[in-house]
Amino acid sequence: MENEILKALSARKSVRVFTDRPVTAEERAAILEAAFQAPTAGNQQLYTILDITDQALKERLADLCDHQPFIAKAPLCLVFLADCRRWPRAYRAAGVENPRKPGPGDLLLAMADACIAAQNAVTAAESLGIGSCYIGDVLENAEQMRQVLQLPAHVVPACMLVFGYPTEQQQNRPKPVRFREEAVVCENTYRDRTEEELREDFTCRAAAGSQVGFDFDRHIQAFCKRKYESDFSREMSRSAAVYLKDFT
Amino acid sequence: MENEILKALSARKSVRVFTDRPVTAEERAAILEAAFQAPTAGNQQLYTILDITDQALKERLADLCDHQPFIAKAPLCLVFLADCRRWPRAYRAAGVENPRKPGPGDLLLAMADACIAAQNAVTAAESLGIGSCYIGDVLENAEQMRQVLQLPAHVVPACMLVFGYPTEQQQNRPKPVRFREEAVVCENTYRDRTEEELREDFTCRAAAGSQVGFDFDRHIQAFCKRKYESDFSREMSRSAAVYLKDFT
Repeated sequence: MENEILKALSARKSVRVFTDRPVTAEERAAILEAAFQAPTAGNQQLYTILDITDQALKERLADLCDHQPFIAKAPLCLVFLADCRRWPRAYRAAGVENPRKPGPGDLLLAMADACIAAQNAVTAAESLGIGSCYIGDVLENAEQMRQVLQLPAHVVPACMLVFGYPTEQQQNRPKPVRFREEAVVCENTYRDRTEEELREDFTCRAAAGSQVGFDFDRHIQAFCKRKYESDFSREMSRSAAVYLKDFT
Repeated sequence: MENEILKALSARKSVRVFTDRPVTAEERAAILEAAFQAPTAGNQQLYTILDITDQALKERLADLCDHQPFIAKAPLCLVFLADCRRWPRAYRAAGVENPRKPGPGDLLLAMADACIAAQNAVTAAESLGIGSCYIGDVLENAEQMRQVLQLPAHVVPACMLVFGYPTEQQQNRPKPVRFREEAVVCENTYRDRTEEELREDFTCRAAAGSQVGFDFDRHIQAFCKRKYESDFSREMSRSAAVYLKDFT
């Protein structure tokens, strides 16, 4: 199957180096509109989007999100917040006396809403030739993040997106190859991949990406150390627990 | 700004009644491929997708997801699971002796990954004329869900999607109107909408959707009762807490 949309979804890759070309007000509006038009539970739009226009704040975020200076150079920077606060405030405004406190289910539903909207923003930007990159690190440093973004209780960063026109080098960068279907899809019920299958899944992926000299043990051990056992990864879980405290 | 992709993102609305036309193997493959090609943290694809082909299982899911029989009638039904299990298993397979237990940050990152992939599946389907509907209720009834989908620890439903060709009635159904920009976007830092602004936000939305006789107090109170204070909403938070227990 092939059409313009499938091609665009398939070609999209992260962009971390931007040209000086600004994102215009019309482009920004189209990106936001696509986010709003995304599916949303009960038409509630359980998110707030922060449009970071202040350069000093961008630099602070670049620092708080695992020290990634390219964030501060992005022409457009949007923080998608899971917002479990707006609707209970509306309920009170409408005269509901004591709406229940948001629980962890409300948070997960709002996280989904926010990420679904964010992905529409990515696809919209791509259609305009504008590149983007997700910054999952926005989940880190909860206390400082709350302070600089003035986040009240029940409002949690779901993801951050930076946008801009890609440099030629970024345009030409190969997209990392994904796993083959059997590595990530099960029929009907969950089944663990065996050790042998895992080795094959990773080895196939490396081969499809023309990665030379892929050694499963060495590469996966190094990845574990660099990502999963990293300080920022532990920090993300510490911060997530801080945010979750409001919901339990 | 206007192009084919922006138009498609804007036009997409949920479909809950499907014709008998099946989703072909090629269409299914294109939908899954778009999901795989979605942005994913560190190219990890922190999700597993269950393709529910067993009719009895579909019916069980329809029942467990707040008794919505249309789920069982969907030609294609995909459950997106946040999977914090595959990579630690790969680390062990690669010889890492004792990788840390996944924490709440890992779960939120995997939830984001799963929902971002799901939204690409939605957009891909739409480009083929195939409608879709998110089923957030897949978060409910954790114990039974774990049993029927055979979910081990650290694997959590992020969302479910059902797909199929829309009936004419569904094609003609108006799409619910979203909030205006100022209701959901803040510049730089979070700011609560005032009570007056909230009333205006909701009233504007109702007017844009040609809703006659909208009464803020009456409608929002009723919505609160029907959704936020409903049994299924409380059940969702109870279940989310069950899943979260593995991560804390």
